[in-house]
Order: sequence, then structure tokens, then C-alpha cells
Amino acid sequence: MNKTTYSDRLVNLGTETAFAVSSDATEHALKGNTVFPFHLGDINIETPKNIIEATEKAMYNRKTGYVPSAGIPQLRDAIADVIGSQRNVNYTRENVVVQPGGKPVILKFINTLMNPGDGVLYPNPGYPIYESQIEYNGGIALPYRYIHSEDGFKIDREHFENLIDDKTKLLVYNNYQNPIGGESSNEEMQWIANIAQKYNLWVLSDEAYFNIQYSGMPKSIVSLPNMKERSIILYTFSKTYAMTGWRLGAAVGPEKIMKIFSKLGTNDESCTNHFIQYGGIEALTGSQEGAEKILQRLKNRRDLLSSKLNEIKGLRLSIPNSTFYLFPDITEIYKSMNAQSYENFRRKTLLNTGVSFCTREHFGKTIDGENKKYIRFAFSGISQNDINKGIDKLKQYWSDL
Amino acid sequence: MNKTTYSDRLVNLGTETAFAVSSDATEHALKGNTVFPFHLGDINIETPKNIIEATEKAMYNRKTGYVPSAGIPQLRDAIADVIGSQRNVNYTRENVVVQPGGKPVILKFINTLMNPGDGVLYPNPGYPIYESQIEYNGGIALPYRYIHSEDGFKIDREHFENLIDDKTKLLVYNNYQNPIGGESSNEEMQWIANIAQKYNLWVLSDEAYFNIQYSGMPKSIVSLPNMKERSIILYTFSKTYAMTGWRLGAAVGPEKIMKIFSKLGTNDESCTNHFIQYGGIEALTGSQEGAEKILQRLKNRRDLLSSKLNEIKGLRLSIPNSTFYLFPDITEIYKSMNAQSYENFRRKTLLNTGVSFCTREHFGKTIDGENKKYIRFAFSGISQNDINKGIDKLKQYWSDL
Repeated sequence: MNKTTYSDRLVNLGTETAFAVSSDATEHALKGNTVFPFHLGDINIETPKNIIEATEKAMYNRKTGYVPSAGIPQLRDAIADVIGSQRNVNYTRENVVVQPGGKPVILKFINTLMNPGDGVLYPNPGYPIYESQIEYNGGIALPYRYIHSEDGFKIDREHFENLIDDKTKLLVYNNYQNPIGGESSNEEMQWIANIAQKYNLWVLSDEAYFNIQYSGMPKSIVSLPNMKERSIILYTFSKTYAMTGWRLGAAVGPEKIMKIFSKLGTNDESCTNHFIQYGGIEALTGSQEGAEKILQRLKNRRDLLSSKLNEIKGLRLSIPNSTFYLFPDITEIYKSMNAQSYENFRRKTLLNTGVSFCTREHFGKTIDGENKKYIRFAFSGISQNDINKGIDKLKQYWSDL
Repeated sequence: MNKTTYSDRLVNLGTETAFAVSSDATEHALKGNTVFPFHLGDINIETPKNIIEATEKAMYNRKTGYVPSAGIPQLRDAIADVIGSQRNVNYTRENVVVQPGGKPVILKFINTLMNPGDGVLYPNPGYPIYESQIEYNGGIALPYRYIHSEDGFKIDREHFENLIDDKTKLLVYNNYQNPIGGESSNEEMQWIANIAQKYNLWVLSDEAYFNIQYSGMPKSIVSLPNMKERSIILYTFSKTYAMTGWRLGAAVGPEKIMKIFSKLGTNDESCTNHFIQYGGIEALTGSQEGAEKILQRLKNRRDLLSSKLNEIKGLRLSIPNSTFYLFPDITEIYKSMNAQSYENFRRKTLLNTGVSFCTREHFGKTIDGENKKYIRFAFSGISQNDINKGIDKLKQYWSDL
């Protein structure tokens, strides 16, 4: 026996490689440089005060003991009501399992519905934890891709359907997408729904950015006929209410699946913090003024950042109506720099301007034949003042290449 | 393809069957009966105010964003200092990964160090999640047992060593044990340490009750020579500071292992709540008056409950110096009742007295040849007044059998 042998399957465990970007930014700042943090997916805006006060009250009212793994009934009711009415479907508390954040829904979806060897479709570029959890748990990772046109990003349907075979069982769909900010047309969403039904796929609908909409109303795939029965929504309080570090979210889906999620929760984490669940009730049922202010601030930043980026020669930008990311095509600038790699491009830009961002590589392996280059600007963790200064520096540096 | 086929390995997922006891108790109460809740592992005592205030302050000070998966450095330092000095070993922040409770350490221990088919030793009767997670993750469950004598519970060493073969790789050791309340003599702990070294086992030292000591000083297996390198401590704030529903704990162990725990955390739950980590710092480094009061209240309950139980004929009790459980041998009473099963014994007692408790069966499968009957009284969730009334009823009912 060899004590130093760890679990074999750890070789398949990925991570969020964007942490390396944070380290580089910190190092650059420690040398006395100004850093413009466009790499952060976090939000530098305060949580609305009514949510903080409701949480405080519950904490003082001794809501400090264990609760059921699925969450307190009042919060489950509130989530069922709000999530259901925003999507025009009917949910009850039996459809809701409260989670310590949105992320735990990904592992529970896989643990509940996937066997080793099953195929799982997921977006690439996309949130890196999908791929990591699929591969770590022995699934076959099937990354589907996007086509960038004047109208924004669309799913490459031919490529998508070619990925599917008899072993394909799960589909991760992230409308209002991180990192590309893309969203489906009604017609694309219906196409996805048809595919899910045709091939009998379970759907994880990652709706983290559902309520971050700068105009119009969001749509969910669960609203389409016959989709609620095969879909699990990943819901989180993180973005809408600036509650990233609170760790509060939920899975919403068919009752039978939710019972398994709850049992997995009993094994893995017992339950979600008790008093914070009262903050969650206030977030959903109390004044939405705080959420509206957060959205307005993000919109102002988006408008500023996109207009500044559009001044840069050689950069091609689709302006998304959702999320807090911009994902420009920087192929021409990349070539002008004679960059050897995405990392080389990113680090050179950081060292010369202080502008820190993630690249397409932080959101999944590049796909064969991919010839355009993209980077991601997050504007959730940076002030308008820093957006102005940072992009001015960037424009100068890139135009001098 | 069959959409209704869930993941195959879910058949091996267990749970805490004690939840059924809670349901029965609730149902009995709803019929207008008084219930004496000795089944609860939760604590009905308030969290110390200095911890609540520190958490409140951090929440208002915008400690609401993401933090590293391993936790904030100041809390990792505090845990390393306190846990290390109480055990007379040296830990630094690199040895600490903050967790949303103690329970997540169990899964991370298994995920990091076990392969399917590896044997894992764990106590039976014991905390039911060990067995569930071992079997769910494809390990071979190797329950070791206890011998009850006048001196309390001792590990059955011959049986223990006979369980070990070439595939045995992990050992779960829960000194200050739930449900039996047992603790190792110095000599037994050294025997366990020798076994771990002889067979090259990784050790999960579940120290949830380390600071719940009614006299004398606790001991940890990591204090013994060559054990720190192969042991991961499960630490939790839940018991010492009455913080069960807060979900705050930590893994403490070798740096290489902690790096993997942290990576698993990035995949599973992102991080532990941010502002609550400041409450954790206050708990460890601030006034211990609150913790002392909690301990005194628990001690008063233990003294009362054990003296009352000792008045009951046919009941055999070892009084533990730790935990908040009593685990009497009730074999004679069980026989007097002509009980058909543990469940029959438990339910008949509940319906006739309102006294609700868990039985030995809630803590793992009974072992062949086990002829004594045990039940568990938890005194963490019941007042002295209710202890008095409940045990009086119990005594009356059982003596009339």
C-alpha cells in the first residue's frame, strides 16, 4: 500500500483557471501599479439593506439551529412563487431545494442523473465548472459551440446535433451566458427544447443571470411545453441581489429529483445556513428597489464600457442585453501583437496597461478549427471611473502595437 | 434511453434515518400530546452574543463578496493557532480549509483519498453519514465495534484488526463519540495510532465534540508521534459555540491534502459564507465565556439526566465525560416489553410517554451476534424541566411493563 496515492479520479478534476489571473493582477498591484480589474466575476456593490436587516433580525431571533436539508418551508414557498410566476409555470415548495449557492446544483444534477460514460452537452466557451464536474464524475464531456455573427452569438446547431449519440443523456443550457453574454432567440430556445425532447435529455437550465436584463423580459426554457418535467433550474441570489459571498441559491425542478437532491444534501452539507434563509425571503418578497439599483449601476457600466470598447480599432463587439460580461473578438489586435498564446496576450496587456481580463481559454478548451480570438471583460467589479481610465490605456497600448 | 433512469449509484446512498423519529415526534405533538425531545442532535441554546455581533459587523462592513475556497486568511490562521495549541502540534493556515460545516469534510476526505473498492474502517454504532458516503462512493464499508463493560465502551480490537486487508486504506476515528459518548484511554488511542501506521491508513479524526468536555482535558490522535502527517481533523463550530445552523467548520491536515480539499471546494460550493467567517474568528479568539456557559448548561443536563436514568430498573448506563448523548443498555426493558423490533420499542414508548429518542439502529446496521439493546438520549435540545418530567413518565411506564 502506498499512503501517498490519492484518489485516481482526481486527475479529471478541473478548476476555475481564472484564479491565476487574479494572482497575476495582485502581483502587478503589489509592485505599485494600478490594476483595472475586468477579470472579476464578483460584484463590488453592496447587498440591499432590507436583506441585511432581515438576516440580522433572524440571527438575533435564534434562527441558528439546523433546518431541513431542503430549506425552511417559507423560503421554499417564496422561491416557488417568484421563480414560477416569472416563468409562467406552477411550482410548489416540493419543487424547491435550497442550496448554499447556485454552484452546488451542478454537482447534484450530475450526481442524480448521470452515470459514468453518459454524455453531457455543455456550452464552450462556458462556465468552467460544468466541464470539470462532468469529467471528474466520469461523464463524457460534449462541448457545444457558438457562431458569432452581426446578430450576436448563436448556437452552432449542426455541430450540436452531431455531438449526440445513444449515450448522451444530459444537457447544460445557460441562456444569458457566461462568458459570452449571449441569449437565445425564441426560435433557438425552442430548437433546444425540441432537441431535449427528441433525444430524451435531462436539462440543467443555469439561470444565474435570469434577472440581470437591461431591457425586455427574460425567458426560461421551462416555460416551453413539456420542458418543466425534464428541467432543473439553477437559481442563485448571488447576481440579482449582490449576494455572491452569502452562498444562497436553490435547485428548482421535478419533485422526485428534488427529493434526491435533498438526500444528497443531507449527506454532503446537512443544510444551508438558517438565518440567511430569512434574508432570502426578504430578497424575493420585499422591496425590489435594491435590486433595481444594482441593475441600473450595471447597465451604466455596460453602456460606458461598450461605447469605449467600440472606439478601439480591430475589436468586434456584440453588446449583450444580459449578464455583466462583454466578450469581444480581438483577433486583429492579437495578430498585431504577434501574441504567441492567449496567456502571452493577456499578460503582455496586463504588464503594459494594468488592464486585467480573462481570455476565452478560461472558459473551456478551444475547439479544433477555432480561428477567432476572444477575451472577457467583466464589469461587475469595477467602477465607471476605472472603466474610463483602464480602457483609455488599453486603446493607447493596442493602437501603438 | 429512459429518462426516468437516475444515476445507478444512488441505490448506495444512505441518509440520517433519525429524521423519521422527528416526524413521529411532530405527529405525536400535533395530536395534542407533550413530546420530550431526546432525539434531537441540535442545540436549543443561543449562540454567544459576541459571535453574533462580530458577524453582524462584518455583514454591514460589506464582507459579502466571494472569498477563496480555502477561507479568509485570518480565520485560517485562527483555526491553525487554536486547533494546534489545544493539541500541542504546529499548524499554519496552509493546513486549514474552511468549510460550510463539519460534515463536508467527510465527503472531501473520501473523494481525496479513497478509490472504489478501497476499505474504510468506521465506528458502528456511529454517525450514519460515514457509512452512507463510503458506500455511495464505492468504498468497502468496514464497521468496527465496541465492547461495553463497567469502564464504559472500548473498541473491540480483535474484531477491528480482523477487518483489515490489503485493500483497507482509510480509517474514521471519532473519539468523543456520537452516539455512545465513548472516549479512548491513552492506551487505546495509541493502539489506534499504531494500527494506522502499521497498515498505512489515512485517518479522518472527527473531533466535533473535542471541546465538549465535562472534566479534564481532551486528547487528539494528531498529538501522537507520526500521526499529524496522516490525519485530517474534522473541526466544527457547531457544538462548542451552539452554531449548528450557521454551517461553519474546517478541515485541518497536511498541506498537500488541503490543496485538494480546496480544489474540490471550488468545484462543489465555491466558498463558505464570507461574513460568518468573521464570527468564526471572534468565536476562537474572543471571550470564551459564552462557550463556558453552554458547556455548564450541558453538564447540568447530563448530571440530571444520568441520575434520573440511573433510577430506572433494568437500565445500564455509562456516564460519558464528553458529547451530549447518553447511550444506555435497555436490554432488560426491551425484553419486558416483548418488543418485536427497535422501531416497535421506540414507537410504543413514544406513544405511551411522549419521550422521543433514537435507537442503536439509527447509527448503523446491527452487527451479527449483537445481543444487547441500546437507545440514545440527546440532552442538547431539551430543558432540565422536560428532562425531569419526561424521565419520570418513562420510569413509570417501563416499570409497569
